Amino acid sequence: MTPHSADAVVLRGDGEPRTSADTLRQLAELDPADVEADVYSLGGSVERLERRFAEMLGKETAIFMPTGTLANHLALRRLCGTRPKAVVQEQSHLFHDTGDSVARLSGITLLPLANGKPWFTVDELRAALDLSDTERVASPVGAVMVESPVRRCAGQVVPFDQMEAITGLCRERGVATHLDGARLYMMSAATGISPREYASLYDTVYVSLYKYFGAPFGAVLAGTAGLIDGLYHDRRMFGGGLSSAYLAAELAVRGAEGFEERFAAAMRQADDLFDALNDLPGLEVRRFEHGSNIVLLHLDEEVRVESFVDSLRDASVLVYPDDDDASAIRLTVNTTILRRSNAELLDAFRAAVAAARERDGFPRSRE
Amino acid sequence: MTPHSADAVVLRGDGEPRTSADTLRQLAELDPADVEADVYSLGGSVERLERRFAEMLGKETAIFMPTGTLANHLALRRLCGTRPKAVVQEQSHLFHDTGDSVARLSGITLLPLANGKPWFTVDELRAALDLSDTERVASPVGAVMVESPVRRCAGQVVPFDQMEAITGLCRERGVATHLDGARLYMMSAATGISPREYASLYDTVYVSLYKYFGAPFGAVLAGTAGLIDGLYHDRRMFGGGLSSAYLAAELAVRGAEGFEERFAAAMRQADDLFDALNDLPGLEVRRFEHGSNIVLLHLDEEVRVESFVDSLRDASVLVYPDDDDASAIRLTVNTTILRRSNAELLDAFRAAVAAARERDGFPRSRE
Amino acid sequence: MTPHSADAVVLRGDGEPRTSADTLRQLAELDPADVEADVYSLGGSVERLERRFAEMLGKETAIFMPTGTLANHLALRRLCGTRPKAVVQEQSHLFHDTGDSVARLSGITLLPLANGKPWFTVDELRAALDLSDTERVASPVGAVMVESPVRRCAGQVVPFDQMEAITGLCRERGVATHLDGARLYMMSAATGISPREYASLYDTVYVSLYKYFGAPFGAVLAGTAGLIDGLYHDRRMFGGGLSSAYLAAELAVRGAEGFEERFAAAMRQADDLFDALNDLPGLEVRRFEHGSNIVLLHLDEEVRVESFVDSLRDASVLVYPDDDDASAIRLTVNTTILRRSNAELLDAFRAAVAAARERDGFPRSRE
Amino acid sequence: MTPHSADAVVLRGDGEPRTSADTLRQLAELDPADVEADVYSLGGSVERLERRFAEMLGKETAIFMPTGTLANHLALRRLCGTRPKAVVQEQSHLFHDTGDSVARLSGITLLPLANGKPWFTVDELRAALDLSDTERVASPVGAVMVESPVRRCAGQVVPFDQMEAITGLCRERGVATHLDGARLYMMSAATGISPREYASLYDTVYVSLYKYFGAPFGAVLAGTAGLIDGLYHDRRMFGGGLSSAYLAAELAVRGAEGFEERFAAAMRQADDLFDALNDLPGLEVRRFEHGSNIVLLHLDEEVRVESFVDSLRDASVLVYPDDDDASAIRLTVNTTILRRSNAELLDAFRAAVAAARERDGFPRSRE
Repeated sequence: MTPHSADAVVLRGDGEPRTSADTLRQLAELDPADVEADVYSLGGSVERLERRFAEMLGKETAIFMPTGTLANHLALRRLCGTRPKAVVQEQSHLFHDTGDSVARLSGITLLPLANGKPWFTVDELRAALDLSDTERVASPVGAVMVESPVRRCAGQVVPFDQMEAITGLCRERGVATHLDGARLYMMSAATGISPREYASLYDTVYVSLYKYFGAPFGAVLAGTAGLIDGLYHDRRMFGGGLSSAYLAAELAVRGAEGFEERFAAAMRQADDLFDALNDLPGLEVRRFEHGSNIVLLHLDEEVRVESFVDSLRDASVLVYPDDDDASAIRLTVNTTILRRSNAELLDAFRAAVAAARERDGFPRSRE
Repeated sequence: MTPHSADAVVLRGDGEPRTSADTLRQLAELDPADVEADVYSLGGSVERLERRFAEMLGKETAIFMPTGTLANHLALRRLCGTRPKAVVQEQSHLFHDTGDSVARLSGITLLPLANGKPWFTVDELRAALDLSDTERVASPVGAVMVESPVRRCAGQVVPFDQMEAITGLCRERGVATHLDGARLYMMSAATGISPREYASLYDTVYVSLYKYFGAPFGAVLAGTAGLIDGLYHDRRMFGGGLSSAYLAAELAVRGAEGFEERFAAAMRQADDLFDALNDLPGLEVRRFEHGSNIVLLHLDEEVRVESFVDSLRDASVLVYPDDDDASAIRLTVNTTILRRSNAELLDAFRAAVAAARERDGFPRSRE
Repeated sequence: MTPHSADAVVLRGDGEPRTSADTLRQLAELDPADVEADVYSLGGSVERLERRFAEMLGKETAIFMPTGTLANHLALRRLCGTRPKAVVQEQSHLFHDTGDSVARLSGITLLPLANGKPWFTVDELRAALDLSDTERVASPVGAVMVESPVRRCAGQVVPFDQMEAITGLCRERGVATHLDGARLYMMSAATGISPREYASLYDTVYVSLYKYFGAPFGAVLAGTAGLIDGLYHDRRMFGGGLSSAYLAAELAVRGAEGFEERFAAAMRQADDLFDALNDLPGLEVRRFEHGSNIVLLHLDEEVRVESFVDSLRDASVLVYPDDDDASAIRLTVNTTILRRSNAELLDAFRAAVAAARERDGFPRSRE
Repeated sequence: MTPHSADAVVLRGDGEPRTSADTLRQLAELDPADVEADVYSLGGSVERLERRFAEMLGKETAIFMPTGTLANHLALRRLCGTRPKAVVQEQSHLFHDTGDSVARLSGITLLPLANGKPWFTVDELRAALDLSDTERVASPVGAVMVESPVRRCAGQVVPFDQMEAITGLCRERGVATHLDGARLYMMSAATGISPREYASLYDTVYVSLYKYFGAPFGAVLAGTAGLIDGLYHDRRMFGGGLSSAYLAAELAVRGAEGFEERFAAAMRQADDLFDALNDLPGLEVRRFEHGSNIVLLHLDEEVRVESFVDSLRDASVLVYPDDDDASAIRLTVNTTILRRSNAELLDAFRAAVAAARERDGFPRSRE
């Protein structure tokens, strides 16, 4: 049974695992009459997508972007204007994974806070703004960006009250705010706070279209018309004005239909499952403080990891031990969990523990 | 009969006109087993595309780009290095249609030559390089870009001997060269000089994937490994590293199969047709000096444009008068001409002239 | 007798020729009690200079800059804000003599008008703004700069009514304006229009401190407080915040005292002298259309240039033939003309012509 | 008696305190025949200065810069080339006091190490280079800059063996190195390692001309001809090509004559004085680990700071308590200490302690 079989529960990735064949099949299911070509990413199905996401996020308007990298970059570029500094989390994707793009292309210095941690506090932010205000040569902070969930920190989320405090301080100080909400819908499912409520705190918000909505690529950036209108010029200037983007837009719109409900159901089911798993001997599910859809599954020493994983795979439940640390398996919840009942899944885990014990009895450290 | 009926000859656009329905149908025809997903535009079908185009263009390697704007930009950025000036045609797409992107994002000044004309001469280039060399504060020219065919000049092409002289001077002076060959295959069909021969003159060359090869978007940039390897970092830095680009890559690879032969056949048929049309009274086909796949169709005064166009449309031959100047209809040759015989097309034009004359007899100026 | 003897009339350079010894002497004459050190170009004698020039130019405030290059750059950078294009004369110093600094460091594209000519017309400017407004990817013009007199065009000045039309159109279109008035005081002396009247047309204006006011270096940029306040941060950011600049400031303030009157007197005397010279046989003074303090002295063929120059030098009148074209000697008026009476100068020229004729009688072409 | 009286010992500032009157007097003492004007900072006395400093620093060549900010910026810009990241100390002047100039104008990201500390170790540097090498989007480190002494850390110096390790690793990894040696001569006097030995470790080195050599402004950047030649273009591009800089150059050359010996003598005398002071009751001199010319003078509780300072001032010994922390007075050694004997100075300190005790007897906390 392959990872992509119809009833596989795949505990990795934020969305349903999707092969090129899956995508081709979904495209084949589209009614051509519903699909309307865009012209260089303007109009047609792309505009429909933009309207849909603006509405979902409670923002005035939205614009399609080919990548999240560009969405974050153009948001900061617009929000900063002539103020050349932006505060970010040190652990953010923008800081570590975009090749210093914001400094190199827009001359904006990223000031990283909260070294190695998921978020900075409002006091840390205030201290940074105060320091910046008093520096000898002015280089004022134009924008503060918050990424949440934080991919580099196992999907931990910035608590809502922290976000309120941070964005409140920013409003007070005249500093603009942007939410890198690539995985915003994961966060909402975990906290019960709607994407719209999160988005309401920020001037602009970006969400990914491909991480869980099923588009082959793409992102949406939402905000007021004053901030978003005209950004298609910058999109083109950066070389991101795709000649046609309607295929990605259509797949994303379809993927977003009912997604919140489906994902909330998945999270509820996972929660129950994890509680039940913690009643089993031999393993323990540990949740992250302020976690979203990721937990750690710890196996007792006498449970052989390899056998455990193999046994689960035989039951079409796919889990992936970390190469570096086999003692903890990171489980990511997504909608594939809905393919099976918790009773069935619990059986699979119970059997896997038994198999991994019976088969040899050697402690894991001997492997 | 719509413009997109199966036997329509559509004398506008470099490629076959393609609706979203056409693209969906083509996607449905792909064998999923042949399609291999890429990872952030690396590997899979995208790599296959890159190898295919490197080979066609006689270059060591090639890289997929989401847009031609990015392909040209990254080529100049790489070729210039720390020399911050690039010579371009004033009429080039890069100079007029990208929002000063190269200056704004890469600090490279574009020096436009050949004001209002399709190309600059080697002497004009030499004078510009000489002037640049003697300026008070050094800002040396790092690269020279040639666009050909020139879209803003009715697709006129830069003569091959001019290109040889220009690129020869550049080699002599240690200045790198880039060909904006978005429509390179049009140029080759017009001149009989292969894409590979053109490409051999330049350090890097860009060709479009969507203008006539049928991809929804995309471009390829080819050159030596020393220039192209590692450019995927810059692609990502600019926000152009699409999460999955294999759909565009697959469509382009298929569109490129046999394209040169099909397009050459279309050009031959068009050539014959235009000669034959010039034997008809009431109209005249005028070719551009160094033209590629665009000609002007002039109607005599007594031929009513509107009736002429309507009559052709009834025969599934689609031509589009310019809003500003109805006296000349720009005809763009593409492979739709192969859908019908010249005899049939000639009949259609003959009938259209007759209809536009008979129906009223009023001179065009009365319309 | 050296060029710098006390009664030498030196018809080159906008100011009095000044050796390092002259400058040291002037410094020795300063009363230390009048000189107040600045702290990184803030306060003290520098502030006094800024106030003095703001007042002279009728602007709210002014800031010292180490060079005119920086003054022009920071003016455009501030005026453009996030609008990344600035219109300049093609013949301007900024366009040709600063190594593309504005594009390289500030990402602002300079759009050069009036190729090879001293000024562009308001219609040419309107056409450029219109074209810019309609381009596919927005890159709006944020500022228009006018240089006058134009150094590369023999000091020709942009007519005041042209300036009024240009700056009027800019106000209408919401485009900011800057005057590169490095030699503003030359222009005023030539046209009788005061520096203050010129400055009133523009948002910001730069004047040089070393070209004729006698400072070893330096410039002043004047404008509204809203534009100028805080620019010292940018000055420092660019590395132009000199630790102490009071020496230059003091020399400039002294040089500016009574300068307008002295220079106006010099221009009147020169005007009379040139009229009188034109009554002499053997030479002709030709004024430029809209010239400032530069004229051309043409010698008849039978007057040997070398002898003529030597003879004048013996009379302490220094003129400098162009290496490339000896037929015309460029005379630049400055306050050294006030050192002698026109009667004396006329005698010197008369004697020089006679000497250059008598001495050989050979036509100049034989030299 | 003013701070600037001829026999005052002023324990603040790296050089002799210098009023505008001092500078005017020094200028008056110059022999005009020795001074040769430069042309836009090229040639004349400026070139003499450059040759002198290149020789002192054991580098092939050197270039005058108007400020240290520009010297550091152009060094990193040149050394980085197309590699857009530079490692610096978090406590460096460049990182905190130049308004993010390097990112804003040159697109180079500064990566700060050693948060709050005077220097980073070679292991910290290696870790940073390793991380940079493995980041998803390449943004390689082109240069490493070391500032020493570190102004923000009380003039502490980076130990020579650390410098050797750091620059050794850089050579190994192909990363260029720059020394911000604004106060290099202070460091040499403290460690006994010559400026030339320090400079030999780095590709380029900058030293200040105004902090202790007595120029009103200016800096020198030294290195190989390959790195320095042509940098005057960049200097001008940034607006730092002063029309005349010979006054600053001449004062610096004179100030540098015999400076190393004078300063070494001052440091020796200070060392002896501090030892002797530590034998006095009521105060203690504390040296910094790896300090240069700064120490902390701690007063016992019963010594009233104000009275102590007043008493010293009466003896023409000037010390300056910190506004924030009166318990420790920072003493900076400079050549004014040579104006008096240690016996005399010791008497002054002894008397000051006595006066500050006798006068009241109240502990400091009551003030």
